[in-house]
Amino acid sequence: MSANQPSQTQSPLRVGVLGFGGLGQAASRVLAPKQEMRLVAVADRHGYAYDTNGLDPDRCIATYNERGSIGHLEGVGTLSDESIGDLIANAPDVDGYFLALPNLPNSFMASVARQFIESGWKGVLVDALKRTSAVEQLLELQNDLQAAGMTYMTGCGATPGLLTAAASLAAQSYAEIHKVEITFGVGIANWEAYRATIREDIAHMPGYDVEKARAMSDAEVEALLDETNGILKLENMEHADDIMLELAGIVSRDRVTVGGIVDTRNPKKPLSTHVRVTGRTFEGKESSHTFTLGDETSMAANVCGPAFGYLKAGISLHRRGINGLFTAAEVMPQFVR
Amino acid sequence: MSANQPSQTQSPLRVGVLGFGGLGQAASRVLAPKQEMRLVAVADRHGYAYDTNGLDPDRCIATYNERGSIGHLEGVGTLSDESIGDLIANAPDVDGYFLALPNLPNSFMASVARQFIESGWKGVLVDALKRTSAVEQLLELQNDLQAAGMTYMTGCGATPGLLTAAASLAAQSYAEIHKVEITFGVGIANWEAYRATIREDIAHMPGYDVEKARAMSDAEVEALLDETNGILKLENMEHADDIMLELAGIVSRDRVTVGGIVDTRNPKKPLSTHVRVTGRTFEGKESSHTFTLGDETSMAANVCGPAFGYLKAGISLHRRGINGLFTAAEVMPQFVR
Repeated sequence: MSANQPSQTQSPLRVGVLGFGGLGQAASRVLAPKQEMRLVAVADRHGYAYDTNGLDPDRCIATYNERGSIGHLEGVGTLSDESIGDLIANAPDVDGYFLALPNLPNSFMASVARQFIESGWKGVLVDALKRTSAVEQLLELQNDLQAAGMTYMTGCGATPGLLTAAASLAAQSYAEIHKVEITFGVGIANWEAYRATIREDIAHMPGYDVEKARAMSDAEVEALLDETNGILKLENMEHADDIMLELAGIVSRDRVTVGGIVDTRNPKKPLSTHVRVTGRTFEGKESSHTFTLGDETSMAANVCGPAFGYLKAGISLHRRGINGLFTAAEVMPQFVR
Repeated sequence: MSANQPSQTQSPLRVGVLGFGGLGQAASRVLAPKQEMRLVAVADRHGYAYDTNGLDPDRCIATYNERGSIGHLEGVGTLSDESIGDLIANAPDVDGYFLALPNLPNSFMASVARQFIESGWKGVLVDALKRTSAVEQLLELQNDLQAAGMTYMTGCGATPGLLTAAASLAAQSYAEIHKVEITFGVGIANWEAYRATIREDIAHMPGYDVEKARAMSDAEVEALLDETNGILKLENMEHADDIMLELAGIVSRDRVTVGGIVDTRNPKKPLSTHVRVTGRTFEGKESSHTFTLGDETSMAANVCGPAFGYLKAGISLHRRGINGLFTAAEVMPQFVR
């Protein structure tokens, strides 16, 4: 963390990824060229793989896609219906995990955190969860995380995550914040690569909730998307950016809005994702700062990059004995080379 | 720092401001409405004022403007030609200082830091310095700051500062950073309120250097501004954003450029100040994220707000026993209510 302690000299951080759908697979590809981090553990619903020498993303992805679980990975894979618990027990020297898990059910992240707490493992977890209520559940674990000697970084993807942190920075110019507006555009070529994520988006739409969206068959999702020409328009979404900015003391959660447009049939974004922070300066002027993501950047790049940046920052905190729960609005992520 | 440790319950942080020109005066006004910080100490070239109950910015500014030094402030002012040293000796319980000092001479910040180190004072310093070489001088003090039990936050104004931190965040989406371009627009109604700052800007212009700009009389500055209709156009400026992003491991300093346009006769900005970070994602796409400051925000708001946000973050680090030198690119500033 300190200005003249370059980390090039240290051995790579040993990193695990829990969940190996679209996000987990992208995470493995993001890690591949990194010198400062090595992917040593992956778990999916039916198994896990662990290799301290590092896992190859191509082999992992091929195995998962062809045989249904990373547990089939030759030499280093193990099939298990308790894959997370078994991985924790068998991989003691992982420095930190990225929880690339579905957000549904809404209590999933907290239940996984509890599993880590109970295992006695001491390390760093980072999630890219979305919903306010999921952060509320993690807040209840704050003391347990601290007592367990764990450092948990929550809401560390794109939004919440990168854009929440940008809002936190932008707020610095103002004496008082009036509103924070997050508007995202997402374009994906094929919704089937992001089945869980798209169901989470549908859950935010009028007339839908988490249970209803989760229960939809692929054919039902397909039919819904046919009606809207593949476009999902989302307004006033329950997104944890609000509670994270409130916890950081910046603005009350009712002044934070999140909405966006998801095009499930075109990788081009329907609009540029941005966060706009409006406030009053000490001289009494109202103005807005804006942070805008480049259109060519994918959801995977904007989620996984920050997630590992926060994981690195979390490991720095953890090594200084700083444990407990932190959000993306409170900590500067560290660039992972 | 942790997500559920609200700081409302703590007593206000006791803050000092060194330097009481345009920037120091603005800093005192920024602090006035804050509940979490109290201005207790101010020093200028000829004196200082110290009051643990808090200093009133209007009285401070009136005294400085009418009588030439804050040292004349009734009841709490002291005239001194060693104002900084005398203030440190007589104000032991200040939590942190904002060094709102001129950047010229270029060694000034480091010499003030050395003065604090030698005094035995243990607290937090924050500066809003501009030049790369000034940060280089502070880097040499890293071990001494650590040994002295001090936490020093450097480059924590607007640029370097807010925009450097935004670049640090924006970099998270990319596997590799190609360039960081900072372009600022500054509009001030009257250059005479910012005599030192304008001379620093002139020092960046072709044909000028620090010594030459500093030696200019007001009439000479006026004549130069008359030639350009009050506009200063600055390119490839020596700005510490470059070394700060290099130290954070994000990009080598030669890929960071800073330029801008200063209108000294119009408070409206000639262009919107922004930072653009261009890189390659893990999928091989080139793109750019952009962070843009609202035109209605003043230089004073964009410098002083972040400076106190970093001071608060620095005090959190200091209270956890984390000392040494940090830059704005490494630490998330904390919003000061």
